[in-house]
Amino acid sequence: MSNERRKTVGILIFDDVEVLDFAGPFEVFSRTRLVAGSDSRRSDDSAPFDTFTVARTHDVVTAIGRLKVIPHHSWTDAPVIDILVVPGGFGTRALLNDERTLAWIRDTAARSSKVTSVCTGALLLAKAGLLRGRRATTHWAGLDLLASIDPSIQVQREVRVVSDSVVTSAGVSAGIDMAFTVVESLCGRAVADETAHYIEYVPKYQNAV
Amino acid sequence: MSNERRKTVGILIFDDVEVLDFAGPFEVFSRTRLVAGSDSRRSDDSAPFDTFTVARTHDVVTAIGRLKVIPHHSWTDAPVIDILVVPGGFGTRALLNDERTLAWIRDTAARSSKVTSVCTGALLLAKAGLLRGRRATTHWAGLDLLASIDPSIQVQREVRVVSDSVVTSAGVSAGIDMAFTVVESLCGRAVADETAHYIEYVPKYQNAV
Repeated sequence: MSNERRKTVGILIFDDVEVLDFAGPFEVFSRTRLVAGSDSRRSDDSAPFDTFTVARTHDVVTAIGRLKVIPHHSWTDAPVIDILVVPGGFGTRALLNDERTLAWIRDTAARSSKVTSVCTGALLLAKAGLLRGRRATTHWAGLDLLASIDPSIQVQREVRVVSDSVVTSAGVSAGIDMAFTVVESLCGRAVADETAHYIEYVPKYQNAV
Repeated sequence: MSNERRKTVGILIFDDVEVLDFAGPFEVFSRTRLVAGSDSRRSDDSAPFDTFTVARTHDVVTAIGRLKVIPHHSWTDAPVIDILVVPGGFGTRALLNDERTLAWIRDTAARSSKVTSVCTGALLLAKAGLLRGRRATTHWAGLDLLASIDPSIQVQREVRVVSDSVVTSAGVSAGIDMAFTVVESLCGRAVADETAHYIEYVPKYQNAV
């Protein structure tokens, strides 16, 4: 990585977060390497991202299906976040009325260079005012709710990844494609494709407009 | 689920397990429902599987990328496992010479109805003698090692999911397809397809031969 600081990827987790919503982007960002091949994945030497989970506190987070994850950081001790990932899951519904969470998202987004969501994470971005007037998408079951939270959003109903400054994605597994879209935009197509080859995935990229 | 007991899905986790290797199948099995739609996912009422992680002890498991997971069960307190999932990751290399892990896999497999692997989890199955004479696959970087562990294995080099009693899969994201292949075989194609629709994934099924 020469002298350049690694970009930090902060993935928000919370109770009843959908597992693949956070684990998919975690996998993609944490396994991206600027040097091709399997051996480069044995160290962080050519890793362009420093990927971590962040939650309100250090308490154990219970994801959907009862997977138990210990967050790397709490809001108060997290490093600066360059790329914010807000995943979805039924847990987002309670957070839609949680002013502290919305304020944290708003403040973190303001200091980040890229704001992204997976699935119903877009509902939180909408409620935080971050999708005003933008094209955006979410899980198919949340499209109407997304439109109702902020009628200025141009809801995209048949698109897997939408890049309109903020990068939103459709449900669950689409977060993997969202992550590859961000990797492509920051590291180039060759790096994104090689990482996809490493995890044996064929990404559906969406280029920023 | 009427009177039928839910099938248990035990996903082995260990230090340096690849995140998507275990999180992909966890997502698929834990979100499968026999009743279609989004609302059925709000409870376990129509869940055909009871999905959990299992590790040697209750200690925190540090996956690749430093994701920290608390296993649901240790080997000694895990329920009977109907479907065993052995994921991969660099952590498998140390376990290839760990007789206790191989014995646990062998014993658990003997009492299960279905044995599966993701990525280099196949190396552990091979070392445990569970792939003798079978067709099997693994991550592309592990194909030669798989063949060398047990030359009787018919290594499949260009296949995503291989079903030959034991269900093995290619690298990382192929574990999602492995899980859908198992869901299809046990619950039927409609249930598998509907669950795939829920997580917005298009599975590549491999039917058992």
